[in-house]
Order: sequence, then C-alpha cells, then structure tokens
Amino acid sequence: ILVVGIGKAEMVKGEWIKKGAVVIDCGINHVIGINAGHGNTVLSAKRFLESHQAGKWNISYTALNLQKPVPSDIVISRSCAAKSIDSLAREVGLLSDEVELYGKTKAKVQLTIIKRLQSRPDGKYVVVTGITPTPLGEGKSTTTIGLAQAMGAHMKLNVFACVRQPSQGPTFGIKGGAAGGGYSQVIPMEEFNLHLTGDIHAITAANNLVAAAIDARIFHEATQSDKALYNRLVPLSGRERKFSPIQINRLKKLGIEKTEPSALTEEEINHFARLDIDPSSVTWQRVLDTNDRFLRKITIGQSPTEKGYTREAQFDITVASEIMAVLALTSSLEDMRQRLAKMVVATSRRGDPITTEDLGVSGALTVLMKDAIKPNLMQTLEGTPVFVHAGPFANIAHGNSSILADKIALKLVGPEGFVVTEAGFGADIGMEKFFNIKCRYSGLRPHVVVLVATIRALKMHGGGPTVSSPLLNSHFVAIGCSLKQIENAKHFGVPVVVAVNAFKTDTDAELDLVCTMAKAAGAFDAVRCSHWAEGGAGAVALGEAVQKASSAPSNFKFLYDLDLPIADKIRIIAQKIYGADDIELLAEAQHKVALYTKQGFANLPICMAKTHLSLSHEAEKKGVPKGFILPIRDIRASVGAGFLFPLVGTMPTIPGLPTRPCFYDIDLDPETEQVNGLF
Amino acid sequence: ILVVGIGKAEMVKGEWIKKGAVVIDCGINHVIGINAGHGNTVLSAKRFLESHQAGKWNISYTALNLQKPVPSDIVISRSCAAKSIDSLAREVGLLSDEVELYGKTKAKVQLTIIKRLQSRPDGKYVVVTGITPTPLGEGKSTTTIGLAQAMGAHMKLNVFACVRQPSQGPTFGIKGGAAGGGYSQVIPMEEFNLHLTGDIHAITAANNLVAAAIDARIFHEATQSDKALYNRLVPLSGRERKFSPIQINRLKKLGIEKTEPSALTEEEINHFARLDIDPSSVTWQRVLDTNDRFLRKITIGQSPTEKGYTREAQFDITVASEIMAVLALTSSLEDMRQRLAKMVVATSRRGDPITTEDLGVSGALTVLMKDAIKPNLMQTLEGTPVFVHAGPFANIAHGNSSILADKIALKLVGPEGFVVTEAGFGADIGMEKFFNIKCRYSGLRPHVVVLVATIRALKMHGGGPTVSSPLLNSHFVAIGCSLKQIENAKHFGVPVVVAVNAFKTDTDAELDLVCTMAKAAGAFDAVRCSHWAEGGAGAVALGEAVQKASSAPSNFKFLYDLDLPIADKIRIIAQKIYGADDIELLAEAQHKVALYTKQGFANLPICMAKTHLSLSHEAEKKGVPKGFILPIRDIRASVGAGFLFPLVGTMPTIPGLPTRPCFYDIDLDPETEQVNGLF
Repeated sequence: ILVVGIGKAEMVKGEWIKKGAVVIDCGINHVIGINAGHGNTVLSAKRFLESHQAGKWNISYTALNLQKPVPSDIVISRSCAAKSIDSLAREVGLLSDEVELYGKTKAKVQLTIIKRLQSRPDGKYVVVTGITPTPLGEGKSTTTIGLAQAMGAHMKLNVFACVRQPSQGPTFGIKGGAAGGGYSQVIPMEEFNLHLTGDIHAITAANNLVAAAIDARIFHEATQSDKALYNRLVPLSGRERKFSPIQINRLKKLGIEKTEPSALTEEEINHFARLDIDPSSVTWQRVLDTNDRFLRKITIGQSPTEKGYTREAQFDITVASEIMAVLALTSSLEDMRQRLAKMVVATSRRGDPITTEDLGVSGALTVLMKDAIKPNLMQTLEGTPVFVHAGPFANIAHGNSSILADKIALKLVGPEGFVVTEAGFGADIGMEKFFNIKCRYSGLRPHVVVLVATIRALKMHGGGPTVSSPLLNSHFVAIGCSLKQIENAKHFGVPVVVAVNAFKTDTDAELDLVCTMAKAAGAFDAVRCSHWAEGGAGAVALGEAVQKASSAPSNFKFLYDLDLPIADKIRIIAQKIYGADDIELLAEAQHKVALYTKQGFANLPICMAKTHLSLSHEAEKKGVPKGFILPIRDIRASVGAGFLFPLVGTMPTIPGLPTRPCFYDIDLDPETEQVNGLF
Repeated sequence: ILVVGIGKAEMVKGEWIKKGAVVIDCGINHVIGINAGHGNTVLSAKRFLESHQAGKWNISYTALNLQKPVPSDIVISRSCAAKSIDSLAREVGLLSDEVELYGKTKAKVQLTIIKRLQSRPDGKYVVVTGITPTPLGEGKSTTTIGLAQAMGAHMKLNVFACVRQPSQGPTFGIKGGAAGGGYSQVIPMEEFNLHLTGDIHAITAANNLVAAAIDARIFHEATQSDKALYNRLVPLSGRERKFSPIQINRLKKLGIEKTEPSALTEEEINHFARLDIDPSSVTWQRVLDTNDRFLRKITIGQSPTEKGYTREAQFDITVASEIMAVLALTSSLEDMRQRLAKMVVATSRRGDPITTEDLGVSGALTVLMKDAIKPNLMQTLEGTPVFVHAGPFANIAHGNSSILADKIALKLVGPEGFVVTEAGFGADIGMEKFFNIKCRYSGLRPHVVVLVATIRALKMHGGGPTVSSPLLNSHFVAIGCSLKQIENAKHFGVPVVVAVNAFKTDTDAELDLVCTMAKAAGAFDAVRCSHWAEGGAGAVALGEAVQKASSAPSNFKFLYDLDLPIADKIRIIAQKIYGADDIELLAEAQHKVALYTKQGFANLPICMAKTHLSLSHEAEKKGVPKGFILPIRDIRASVGAGFLFPLVGTMPTIPGLPTRPCFYDIDLDPETEQVNGLF
C-alpha cells in the first residue's frame, strides 16, 4: 500500500479529495491515493460524486464474544475494543474536515455536511417507541441499539442509530447509565453517560446566563432613572454612542425606526430602556444537571447587595431547559439563532412577552451553543455508527433526540439505508410528539414505527398482582394497552412493527400470544427479540420485519392542524391518543389560552406534560382507562423551541437523590483509569 | 516523501514508534518512516531515546503581520491561522497516543507522559507576577504570552507558556476575554474564553453533586430511624448485603474494623449511618460559572417535598470551588482521588469534620474529574505551545494554574528550555502563594521571577491625581510600591527581572526612571517591553534578560515553616510581604485557630484572602502603606486542596452583571460561524 506525495498526515484522511485526487477505500480502512492532477478534475469530480453517493459503506464490524450469564453493562462495554472514531467517521463517508475529534471515541460532525450531501436521497426513517411502560423501563434504548446492530453487522445495511444524550443527574442518583444495555449498547458507556462533548454543560451555561440577565435587569431598572439606565445601556465610547445590533432589533420590535441614540424621545427612551418585567411573571428558571431536590423552591436575592429585591424561584434539571428543546428542534445555526432569540422569559407589566432578544443576550446564547449544535458520533458494541444528540425532557418537552442528527444520518446512510431514532416514554407521549412536533418541524416522514413491548409491562397493565404472575387470558385487558398503542401509531398512517423484548422469565406461550394479538390488531408484524442477551443477532428478525415494513404502503398524516384553536388541539390528542371522553381547562389554563392567543402563539403545536405511566392523567390507572376527563391545570409556552405545553397535573422538574445514591459504587481505578460502578 | 507499510493513517502520527520503527521528523511536518523490523529493536530504541530526549524542537512558527493601530483582540486572533493542534503536539515531542484532540485547535495531554519522560531533566521555571495592580490589570497574561513568543519564535528556545483557564462568568459580564491581548495572545481566543474542553463545567458538576449530597443526607437522616437509614445505605442485593469500598473507608475512620454488615452493633450502626451534620456548619457552597448576583444569598428547601427543612445557602462562581484548587494543586490521578476525598464540607454535631468520603461521593467526583485533570494544549499567535489548565480564584484560593501543566511542560522543553507560568494578582498575593503553596506541593524550584509593572499603575500608587499626570520625582513613593514588590520576590531568594509593559502614552523619561530605580533596588535587570503592539519581537530584550537571570545564583527558600502555629504563619506573611506592624485575630478567627488545630489541620500552608488592590487590607491605600494592623476576620479550610484561608475583610465570591453586560455585543455570524464582539 503506497501513499504518494503526502504533505500532512491529515491528507490521508480525505482532504485530498478537495484537490481533485481519487481516493479509493479498499474496505479494510486502508487508503490508496493517486494524485490525479488538475487536468483530470472533471473525471475526478465524477468519481468523487460516485464514491460519495449512496452505495454500501465499507465498514468493519466488531464481533461480540457473548457470555452467559450476561455480565454488567460496564463489563461488556469495557470488553469490546471501540474502533477509533476517525476510522468510523471515514467508514460512513464523512470527510476529515467535517469531523472534530473529542478524544479517541467521540467526535462532532460539522453542519457543512448537510450542504455537501443535499442532493443525496434520504434513507428510511424508523422511530422506536414503546407501550405504556413500567417504572423500570421496557428497553426502548436497548432495542434501538440492538436493531441498529442487527441491520448493520448482520444484515449488512447502512444504518445509523440516533439517541438522546442522558442527563448526568440520574446517572449519579438512582438510574445509572442510559446507553442501552447488555449486548446492545453505545460504547464507551462511561463517555456516553458522563460529560460527552459538553453539550448539556453548554446548555446549563446558556440557560443560567439568561436567568442572571433577567434578575440583574429587574434590579437595575428598579434602582435607576430612565436617563441613567439609557446612558449605561448605550454608553459613550470614545465620543460616540452606538446601538448594538441586538438593541436595534429591540427598537424595531417597539416600532422605533431610529438608529441614532440621540434621536430618541423621552418616551421612546423609556420604552427602550425599561423591559418593565413583572417579577411574578418570570417563567424562566435556573438549571443544573444535578439531582438537587433542595433547589425545587428557593428564595433568591437575600444578600444586602441586592437591596431587598428578593423573589421566589426554582432550579430545574438542565435537560428541562427550553434551550435543550431548541437544540433538539433546530435545523441550522441561523434557525437556532432565531429560536434562541424568540424564547419568552416573562411578561411585562403592560402584558407584552419579554424575550431573550429584549434582554440583549440572544447572540451570546448562540455563541455558547455553537459547538453543541453539532451531532456527536459514537458507536455501538458491534461497530455501527450512532449519533448522540440532545435529550429534552420527555414530559415538559418533547423527549426526542435532535432533528439535525436524524437529517445528517439519513443522508449518510443513503436511499437503501436506515436511520433508527428513539422517542421518549410510551407511544402516547414520545411518539405522538415525534410526529406532531419533531416531524412537523423537520419535514421528515417516517417509514416504520417499532413499538417495544415487554411481557412484564403488559402484565402490570393487566392488573396482575405481581409481574411474575402468568399472562393468562384474564389479562387480555393488559394486551389491550399494547393494542391501543398500535392504534395510536396507526393514527398517523405509518406501518407498525411490534418488538417483543424477551426476558428470560417469559414463557413461549406468553410471547406467542402477544405476537398473535398484535398482528390481529393491525400491526404489520410482531416479532420476539433478544438483543439484550445476544446483541444484533438477537434482533435480526426484527430488522427483517422493519425492512419489509419500510416498503409497505404508508400514508403519513398529522393528528391535528396547527390552525385549530388551542383547546381543540389538546382535545384531539386527549380523545384520540389517550382515550379520554373530553378535556377540562381549569382557570389558569383558560387564562393562558386567552393570553397566548392574544400574544400570537396560538398556532404552535401542543406538547402534553402528562405522566408516562398511564394513558390517562393518573399514574396508577393501568391498561386502557375509559370514561375520564383530562384536566388541564395550566399551559406554558416554549416559544423559541416552538410549542405550548399543557400541564396535566404537577410535573417534577428536578429529581432528588435517594438515601443511597448510585454514586456510592462509582469510582475510578487510578492505575488503569477505568471507571467502576456505572451500570 | 514515501510512507511505506501503513495500516492506518494514525500510524503516520507516531504509533509506529511502539513497533520499533524509526521516524524522522524533517522539520516541515513531513514524516519519513522505514519499518525497521523487530531485528533492529535495540538500535531503534536507542534512536527513539535520542530523538525524544532534550534537543531543540523542530517547530514551525507563525509570522505576524503587525498592523497599526493595533486592531481588536478578536480581529488579531482571527487573522492568524492556527497550526493544527496535532502538528503542534508532534513538534513539541508528544506521541500520538498521549494526545486527545478536541477539535482542530485544542487537545488534552494524557498524564502517562510524566512516566515516559521521568528521567529527562526539567527546563528552567519562570514565574510572571506583577506590582500591585490598578483595577484595569497591568498585562501579566499578555507578558506571559509575549515572553513565550519571544523566547520561541525569536530566540529559538524550547518554551511553553502555562496559563489559567478563565471563568466564563466575567467573559459575558464586564471583563471580556483573558487570552492575553494585542499581538500576544493564545488562539483561537474564543475557544480559550468559552467552554475550552469542559474542565470548569466538570468542576461545576462535581461541586454541585457534593452540595446535593449534603442536603439530601441531612434530610434523609432527619426523616428516618437508624434502622431504616442503615437498611437503605446497605441494602439487600439478591440475598446479600455488602458495604461499598467507600463505606468501608468510613468504617475505618470510625475505628470499626468490620466488613460484614450484619456484625455491627446498634451503636456502630448509629455512628456509621448518621453523619449528624450540623446544618449551620456547612461550608460547602453550590457553584455556577455565571455572574449571577441574585444567588449570593438564598434560602433553599422551600418546596413542600422538603418538609420544612429550609436553610440559608449561597452560590459561588465555579472557579472559587475547592475542587478547582484541588485540580490546580494535584500531582496525579491517585493524588487527586485522595484530595477529593479529604475535602471537609461541614462539622458534625459532635465536632468532627465531615468529608466527601463520609458522604460516599469521592469516587464519583474523581470520575467526573477524570478528563479535567489532563492539561489542555493550545498555541500562541506565533505558534509556540501553551498549556491552559485550572484557574482557581486568586483571593479565596491560590490563583495559579496547574502543577501538572507546569511539570509536563518542564519535561517537554528539556533542560535548555523554559516554562513561563503566571501567578494571579500582584506579587504580594499570587507570587507569595505560588512559592509557599504551589511550589511547596510541586517540589519545583523557580529560576526567575518576572515582575510586570506599568507606568499607569505606578502613577496611581504614587497618588497622582489622574493616570495621565507625569511621573515626577514627587511620585517616588509610587515607585516604592514597585520596589517593595521586588523586595517581596527577593525574600524567596530568586532573581527578579522587572518587565516594564510600555503603553503609547508613556514617555521615555518615565520608562527609563523606573528601569534605573528597579535595578538600584536589587532587580537582576529591568527592561521595557512592547509585546502588546509588536508580539514576541517586543519582548526579546525581556527574554534575553530572563535567560541570563536563569543562570544567576539563586537560593530558593520558603517564607515560613509549616510547623509554626497558624497565627505565626499569618503574621510572617503580613509583616514581611505586606509591611504590616502586626495581625489581629478577631473572635471567629481565634475560634477557627482552635478548631483547626484540634482537628489536625494546623500544619497546612496559608492562603490569604486579601484585596489585590493594596499591599494592605484597604483597597484605597495605595503605594506602600505603613503602620497598619492586619485584621483577620475569619479562617476557612480547604483541606483537600491543602490550605487554610484567613479572610481579611469580605471577599465577593460571585460577581454580578452590570447594567450593560458585554453580552450585548457578542454574536455569531451564522454564515461564517465567526464569533463577534469578544474583545
């Protein structure tokens, strides 16, 4: 193997291509290059296009060495040698200058790739959702990864998994890792579960800069005259006063078409300089990515330096920040800049929405988020590619990974390839939001829904006294829960494949019964899978069913039109998806319907904040509850992210630590640098 | 140029070496390799050692294109093409598997290099400090970078600059960037000033996990019986109960030599399960890297879920966290693990110090900090290497960058090379702590002190009515301030070079006068420099003086012995460095002296928390104040980091935002992805 005329080592990794060279990938990660010279540019360009269109990846897979009993997740993760991430990036067709390495096992992918691949047709788009879960979770992430391992390493298809980045709070609290599990994992699992590339930290920083700006602004306005405020906001610099571009945006919003600071009238100065925020209207909360229950409700501003301007406030977990939802729903840097500017943080005493743009902080937010917007590339245990990007809360936000990761992955896999993306919680929540919010903003249309079910969850929803009681006919009501979720998926006109995630305690009779009933209820197919114990090999049947379903007729449609009144949109979701008889808007919710309609936010999609443990609003109502009225306590707006979220009951927005948090077991071996105790 | 037998592109970057190949760096970043085969291993090993010992680096420098007037920092930063960071890593002798890239311009260096280079002699160690500054700062960072540019690009010496990572809070508040300035900068300055590689974010996460653990533990102990607590802390798993290793450490501390959970007596269970923290004794604060003044004093725990267990608390800026001081003072992963475990967060009702180890969280902290411990490699405008690592607060902590970065840099430059490291604030604070705390823990001995002075600061300390009044003889008292700081440096037995950082408003007569007087006061040399306007070329005279001074006789000694009583150590610093007549311990400080002596912390070094704007405790006292008694209001302990910090007055630990924060000007161009408005 010969490399000729190299200047820098990087050139081996793909930069030649820009110089008109022909690069042939011979399938074992070696590179052969012949500098074609400028005379051959047209031919080179043609070959370049060929080599970068569709086509199967030359990708190496990692063989699993399956053990029984299945070891702990971290032992499995550690036992597999990850490919160097720049090799994987090349294998899936990324150019070296599109990739930013973060160590040896993580990389960020630059958004420039969207333009390079814009004419390539998309791959098939598969969303993984679940039946109404138990508090233990039913293995959606594991199924997402297992399915990708099956379609890649075993079916030799181009396939990407797209998953959410987990919050660090629960990792050290009660939940442990979230990288899948068993022989279906993203690796290295400790990198996945810890800081990753810092995206959530960037959100913490950006979110809290807004919070600091709100309270500092209320304070400065309360303690200064119009003139003093204006002189500080538009200070003399040298002999000049100038508005910053962000301030000119605010002037435009106020209808003041002036760019010369001395030209403003006193009234205009007052309007410009005073946001006049009503402190009781502030909806923007501080955040931390820590399970800190003592920050659920606090009083701030009690130092004498704040002169008595105290107020009640709260911290949420970082993934509940609207900025996380913006990250997940944005389609470009420009679009993110606009969404970050539109976020409404409070209402003025005059009743106007106050945005981050009014605070002058929107540009700084974009700067803080400039790296977070790039999807993170990692790999599965079997060496297939994974994007880990964004992780909005699944109750007060939409609970889906990023649009950008899905879009880039769909281009990279090409028209014969597959992208498997996961939606949080059960089909009534994550999937409904995937369709009505994420797909609405992305313009992408899914080909297949995979609905993950476990015998354990079906038993619980069937009212079995314990999860170990057999799944008898008397528990058909349980399977009803699964059938209802099949119906929910079919509302959107997309074929449904039920994946029955087998546990060793399940009997063949139970598994067969569920598959038979699911097919009878209209599922395209229903198959057992065992990827937790067997890796991709345990999900090949599922992969084949998904591949077939992706060619089946499909007729995607949204559940509601955005133009409908707010209450009608909520009612449609409640009746069609949850099976409610009707909704009831309580007083605060009625007030918000009027406010948001007046403020011009009525045509946003709806993001229900409801328990994931029941189709209804009451977590203890299992199976398929009937005859209930869904109460809407309040409605909030994430205007930048782009949705209204009706609150059905009280949603906890920052978890706490238990008496014995999992951090008791977590430690680092200083010799080997291995992380122990993550599971 | 021929590369033969390559498997992967990475091999070009150095991994061959492990296989016994000979790699020749021909100085223009090209690589020639001939696989020497295993027969030649001995010869190869010899050559490998030769090529990796001492010797001058084959390093390419970046030429500056100087403009007048000097453009803004970000314009200059952007106008220089940074070398790819993996090229720079190779140029300074790092092996590819010792480097973790973070994008194209930042990399982390693994600590394994310490072992590889352990037998190589260290380079010369230069610390940059300053005279008592004005609130504007006198250019210590700029001089540190300018000196490194001069010694590298102009004097062709191996040289590393080691600087602190700045807090993001001030970057968006009032201060702007901190990467040096003008033609002496670390680039890209926006990467330097923003998230860098996430070290400060890791500290935020680790610090706040401790805080959450403290309040959750107090709450769980207050609401549960001994038995319930114990059953939760040591739960049945399967049919077994087991102590985690961290719990066994706590048992040992309590003198309970048992490892079988069922063997504990009721009293032992009580001691083990109840930390019995006195809520009023909690010294551990939450942190954010945001200028959020409303978090200076807060009340937490006001949600009904916390059942009335409210308490007063506060947030500090992240760089004030003890974990930042630990990062800066640690010497290895094992040492960091121990320091993180020793941190004292509160006192029990029985009077015992409660540590992070008692809380069971020390292992998790180490895991959260496992990447932060690796120094970050960046470069100056002229292409010389820079380590950016740790940035502890210079008042309540010691204000110096990390020991690990300095140690690794000293090995990389080799015995003829130089490491230029910066100490925060003036010589009375940053330098004193550099010697008495940082050098004490590192065992490193400095060769030269560079004392940065500006005419502006000397005028202010001379009591000139404005900084634009001429520096007349009547202001000799001003220069006295500079002379006192020369004396302070000489206390430690190290030669002092005064760097007079010239501004365009300074006259030749002024600059000459200061140089003459500094030399008369015992400085090894005193030279003007103009690196802000001219880059390294403007600091060559300084570089030459430093090189000469590094060979001058030196007799380093500490200012005090650790074994002295706490009050004596404080008095020595106050009298010898500040020029105080004596100290006065106020009641709270006397109480702490007794407490820490009883708890066994009396032999720690002292880290004074004093204003940096005067040699005395009163910021408005300029020049060389005389005849004052230094009041010690309180004393705190950073037991993990390893120092006691006496409080002289009230130190603000979280800044606020001004009426017009600098974020008004900061924005991202979505087309070019350029950051605008950082300065």
